[in-house]
Amino acid sequence: VEVEDAAEVRRLTAELHPADVADLMEQMQEGHRGGLFTLLGDAFDAETLVELDEDVRDALVEAIPNDQLALAVAELDTDDAAFVIENLDEDDRAEVLAEMPVRDRLALQAAFDYPDDSAGRMMQREVFAAPAFRTVGEIIDRLRGQDDLPERFYEIYVVDPTFRVVGVVPLSRFLKAPRDTVIETLILEDHPLVRDLMDQEEVAYLFEKYNLISAPVVDESQRLVGMITVDDVVEIVHEERDEDMLALAGVDREEGGLSIPVRQVARSRFTWLSVNLLTAILASFIIGLFDATIAQAVALAVLMPIVASMGGNAGTQTLTVAVRNLATRNLTGANAIRVVTRETIVALINGIAFAILLGVAAGFWYDLAGYGEAGDGLILGCVLAAAMIITMVCAGLAGTLVPLGLQKAGADPAVSSAVFVTTVTDVVGFFAFLGLAAVFLVGR
Amino acid sequence: VEVEDAAEVRRLTAELHPADVADLMEQMQEGHRGGLFTLLGDAFDAETLVELDEDVRDALVEAIPNDQLALAVAELDTDDAAFVIENLDEDDRAEVLAEMPVRDRLALQAAFDYPDDSAGRMMQREVFAAPAFRTVGEIIDRLRGQDDLPERFYEIYVVDPTFRVVGVVPLSRFLKAPRDTVIETLILEDHPLVRDLMDQEEVAYLFEKYNLISAPVVDESQRLVGMITVDDVVEIVHEERDEDMLALAGVDREEGGLSIPVRQVARSRFTWLSVNLLTAILASFIIGLFDATIAQAVALAVLMPIVASMGGNAGTQTLTVAVRNLATRNLTGANAIRVVTRETIVALINGIAFAILLGVAAGFWYDLAGYGEAGDGLILGCVLAAAMIITMVCAGLAGTLVPLGLQKAGADPAVSSAVFVTTVTDVVGFFAFLGLAAVFLVGR
Repeated sequence: VEVEDAAEVRRLTAELHPADVADLMEQMQEGHRGGLFTLLGDAFDAETLVELDEDVRDALVEAIPNDQLALAVAELDTDDAAFVIENLDEDDRAEVLAEMPVRDRLALQAAFDYPDDSAGRMMQREVFAAPAFRTVGEIIDRLRGQDDLPERFYEIYVVDPTFRVVGVVPLSRFLKAPRDTVIETLILEDHPLVRDLMDQEEVAYLFEKYNLISAPVVDESQRLVGMITVDDVVEIVHEERDEDMLALAGVDREEGGLSIPVRQVARSRFTWLSVNLLTAILASFIIGLFDATIAQAVALAVLMPIVASMGGNAGTQTLTVAVRNLATRNLTGANAIRVVTRETIVALINGIAFAILLGVAAGFWYDLAGYGEAGDGLILGCVLAAAMIITMVCAGLAGTLVPLGLQKAGADPAVSSAVFVTTVTDVVGFFAFLGLAAVFLVGR
Repeated sequence: VEVEDAAEVRRLTAELHPADVADLMEQMQEGHRGGLFTLLGDAFDAETLVELDEDVRDALVEAIPNDQLALAVAELDTDDAAFVIENLDEDDRAEVLAEMPVRDRLALQAAFDYPDDSAGRMMQREVFAAPAFRTVGEIIDRLRGQDDLPERFYEIYVVDPTFRVVGVVPLSRFLKAPRDTVIETLILEDHPLVRDLMDQEEVAYLFEKYNLISAPVVDESQRLVGMITVDDVVEIVHEERDEDMLALAGVDREEGGLSIPVRQVARSRFTWLSVNLLTAILASFIIGLFDATIAQAVALAVLMPIVASMGGNAGTQTLTVAVRNLATRNLTGANAIRVVTRETIVALINGIAFAILLGVAAGFWYDLAGYGEAGDGLILGCVLAAAMIITMVCAGLAGTLVPLGLQKAGADPAVSSAVFVTTVTDVVGFFAFLGLAAVFLVGR
C-alpha cells in the first residue's frame, strides 16, 4: 500500500487518531516509516511521534531531516517535545533546537537543563495560574482572553504575588462556585506539590497514592515552574513495571519491544545467559564433587534435578512477591522482618509437605526399581525429604533477603536478584541432596 | 500506640490524607485495624476504605458492623461504594444496601446488575451532562445551582434530548470559550465512548491508547449511563500488569499482598509447586531412561543440568517478552510469524555461541579430568554442543508459540505458559543431551 504513494494515504490517515497512526507505523516495515512521514507532509500530526514506541520513535526521528523535525516538534507542548527529541545525539538536538521559534527553544532548553528522569524534565511549562485574591468571575474572563494556555488542564494553580504556589483548585470545583467567590477559598486541602528535582519514580508514587490528575511543579523557593499531568505519569509507571517484569527474566527493557534488530536482541540476551551459565557451572561443580557417589547410585542423578527445580521455583515465587511489594512500597524496613519470617514459615510448610510426598514416593520407587539393597529405599526417602526441606527454606530466605539486600545497597532489586536466588537454590539443592546421600546412603 | 485509645488518635489522623491513613492501617497488625475504625468513629473518612489493599479492605469490611458500614459507604461515589462492598457475601451486602438511603441503594444495586469486570461495574453514576443547544453561559449558571454533581469531573458530556451522547467537551476548552458559544461547537473530535458491557481490560486499553482522563459510559442505544475516570483505570492496569508478573512466577494475584494469612499463602503456592513437581518428575523420568548411560559415564550427570538450565532461561526470556507484548497488544496475529521467526533466529545465534563455548570447555574438561578414553572429549563436546543448539531453538519456539497458542485458545498466556515452556526445555534438554551421548559416546 505504502509504496504506491499520494493523496490516498493522506485521506485514509486524516480520520485516524494520532495513536492509531502510530500503531499503524509500528506494524509497518522499518524502511516504510520514513516514507509515510514524507508522504503525509503537512498532514502529519506531531502527536503521532509521542505515541510511537520508543525504539520506533528514535529511529524515525533520526531519519527525518532536522528542519522538518523542528517544525513538527514546535507544535507540541514542552513535555512532549522534550520527550521526542531527548534521545537524539547532541549535534542533531542542537540543530533541531536552532530551527525552532525562540520561545519554544528557550522552554525546551530549560527542560534539558533538568536531570534525566526528574520532574523538571517530565513537566510542561505551559500552565494556568491565578493570583489568590482574584474572584471566579475575573478568572473566567481572563481565561477567555488568553491564548498561550496549555492545551488541556484540569486544575487552576493559585499563586501569591511572587508566583509561589498557595494551592490547587480543580476545575470542577471552580465551575460550581459563584462568580464573586475569591479563588483562595476554593483551595483543596493537602494537594501535594512536586519539586522540580524530584525523581520521576517519586512523582509516579505521589500520583498513584493520592489519585492525582495533575500537579504543579515548583522550584526550591516554591515558585510555580510547570505542571505534570497523569498521562505522562501513567506511561512512566508502566515502563517501570514492565522493566521489573522483564528484568526478573533477564531481559533489558529496551529490548522488550518487537522492533529491535535481531543482532541487538541476541547480544543483550547473551549477556544474561552468560551470567546464568556461571550459575549452571557452579551447580555442575557441586555435582562433580559427588561423581563417585553418583557412580555408586545412579538413581541420585535421576532424582537430583527435582530438588533443585522445586527450590528454584519456590525461590522465584517468593522473589517475585518481594520485588513487586518493594516496587509498590508495601515492603519497607518496618515490616521486613515480619515478611521474611512469613516467607520462611510458608517455605517450611511447603517444604515439609513435599518432603513427605516425595520422600515416600522416591523410597518405594528406589526399592521397586531395584536400584539398591532392601531397606535403602527408606534411607533415600529420608535423604530426599531432608534435602527438600533445607532447599525450600533457603529458597524462602534467599527470595526475600536478596532483593531486600540489593535494595538496601542501592541496586535495583528486580535486575540481578533472580541469578542470586537461583544460584542459592541450585547449590543448596544439589549439595544437600548429594551430600546427605554420600554420607548416609553410599558412604556407610 | 493503638491500644491506649482516644482523642489523641483522632487528632493525629485528622491531618492525614485518606491514602496515608490507609497506609498506616496496612502496616498495623490485623487485630488493631477494626479498633482504629471504632476509635475514629465519625472522624473515619470513608475514602480510606477505597485506598486500602484488597485483602486488608475485605477483612476490615467483614469486621465492621453492617449499619456503620452502610453509613460510611453512602458518603462515597457509586463506583467506590461498589468497589468497597463487592467482595462481601450476599447476605451482608444485602443488609448494607438495606441500611443505605434509597437513592444510593438504587444506584448501587444497578451497579451490581452489571457483570463483574465490566465498565458498568467500574463507572460512577454521578455525571454532568449538558444539552447540545445550550450555551457556555447557561451551563455555567446551571452548574452553580446544582448540588448532585460528581465530586470531581473533567469533561462535560453533551447529550441530545433523548440523553444520547453527542460528544465530549473538556472543562479547560469549555472555560476558554465565550459565554454565548453553543456547547455543541466545542465538542472534541473522536473522543471514544465506552459501552457499559465493555470488559475492563478493553476500557483500560482505550484510556491508555488515547490518553483519556475520563470517558462517558453509554448503554446499547448510546444513552449516557455513567462516567469512568482515569484513577479507576490506572488501578486496573496496575492490577493486570502485576497479575502477569506474578502469574509468570506461579503466584496468584490475590496472594501477592503481604497481609494474607500464612496458611492461605502456603496453600496457594503449593498448587503451583505441585504442577511444577509433575514437570520435574517428567524430567526425572527422561533421565531415568538413560540411567545405564549415566552409570557408564558419570560426567553426563555433572553436565546435564547445564543444558536444561540454559534452555530454561532462554525460554523464560522469550516467554516474558511475548507475554508483555501480548498484554500491550504489540504482538498480534498480524506480526506473530515475524516475531516467532525473530525469536527462533535469536535462539539459534545464542545456541550456536554457547554450543561452541561449552562444547570446547566440556571436551577439554572431560579429557583432563580423566573421565573417558582419549578422544572421547571431542565426542562429548560435540554431543553437548548439538544438545545445546537443539534445546535453545526449542526454547525460542516454545517461548513464543506457547503463549500465542494459549491466547488463541482463550486462556491467559501469563498464567500457565511458564510450566509448559519449562517442561519443553527440561524434557528436550535432558533427552537431547543424554540421548546423543547414549548413541555416540557410550553406545559405540
